[in-house]
Amino acid sequence: MHESTISQRERNRLDTWNAVHEAAHAIAWEEGPQEAAVEAIAARAGVSRRTFFNYFPTKEDAILGTRTPEVSEGDIERFRTSDEDELTRVVHLFVAVVRTAIPEATSPQRRRIIGEHPSLQRRVLRLLSEVERIVAEVIQARVEDGDDVALAAPGDGARLEALLMLSGVIAKYAFHRYQESSAEDPREFLDESIAMFREVVDTTR
Amino acid sequence: MHESTISQRERNRLDTWNAVHEAAHAIAWEEGPQEAAVEAIAARAGVSRRTFFNYFPTKEDAILGTRTPEVSEGDIERFRTSDEDELTRVVHLFVAVVRTAIPEATSPQRRRIIGEHPSLQRRVLRLLSEVERIVAEVIQARVEDGDDVALAAPGDGARLEALLMLSGVIAKYAFHRYQESSAEDPREFLDESIAMFREVVDTTR
Repeated sequence: MHESTISQRERNRLDTWNAVHEAAHAIAWEEGPQEAAVEAIAARAGVSRRTFFNYFPTKEDAILGTRTPEVSEGDIERFRTSDEDELTRVVHLFVAVVRTAIPEATSPQRRRIIGEHPSLQRRVLRLLSEVERIVAEVIQARVEDGDDVALAAPGDGARLEALLMLSGVIAKYAFHRYQESSAEDPREFLDESIAMFREVVDTTR
Repeated sequence: MHESTISQRERNRLDTWNAVHEAAHAIAWEEGPQEAAVEAIAARAGVSRRTFFNYFPTKEDAILGTRTPEVSEGDIERFRTSDEDELTRVVHLFVAVVRTAIPEATSPQRRRIIGEHPSLQRRVLRLLSEVERIVAEVIQARVEDGDDVALAAPGDGARLEALLMLSGVIAKYAFHRYQESSAEDPREFLDESIAMFREVVDTTR
């Protein structure tokens, strides 16, 4: 969606989301996550408890600025129709879904608060396993269509798990590269990260 | 070390280690990890505070039955002199060091208590990053000797990180296979796990 096409209604939703996230982060930063109860966050953001839950499933998500992971029709379509190899397609799908759950825009505050309160990392790990489940479902649906040789070969479960774990670690590697850089988009690093893992496998035979 | 060669002194050390771990686990299980203070653990195990710290660097280690990771001379020697490819050698080294820190013998209790108190997982993650640092140091020393083509090629830092991340994820995959099995030793699954990741890379070109 281009910025110019965001409706007033959508803008209002974003503003409210940001206000609730800012309030939750501020309380957790100043007084600790245990003080960031839903009531306290809602009061500071000037919204009702009910509105809070329209925006955030848990108070940890409000503190961290994270969302429930989703996969868009566009990402599924790209995964299904792309000419790229399966590993590349899975890594791109993985990162697309991660970005819906763990937005870049809230990343600096998120890193700062996790640094101070490491137990918050658990919520991020939980979101990443939800991402993995969603990606596995998309792949499984594709396998049932019958045309991915590598994925549909016998022993699917173990092979699919290896593919998902490999995609996850390549995505993590790409995010490390991105964080060291001044690039605008972590996706710039995906193809070179996939190439690096392929190279490590190839040069260690 | 074969069991028959364990000295009485070493047996006494193992007994004390187990007694302190059992006491720490019992308190954390019955009353929660926050109640498992060093004093309470030492009292329940019938040892002094000073003895406690001779056996465990932190109370989390006592609860989890974990140790500070170490690399043995034998493991370094195997890594340096083996004819296997580098990925295989790194995965085996990684698992050897993991096993010093996160022993199999205490695994069922550890899984149970982490299931109940997920914040304890942080200590395990911390130990795994210490393992990664130790393995990186062993590799780095080997690279300085100058005879590993893949590792000593230009761009070492990024390549070494990819190799470590790949080894870690293959080790994790092997442990998943092991936990699903009735095998006695997770190392049985290492070679087939490495082969599986190679296959995923090869069949997704």
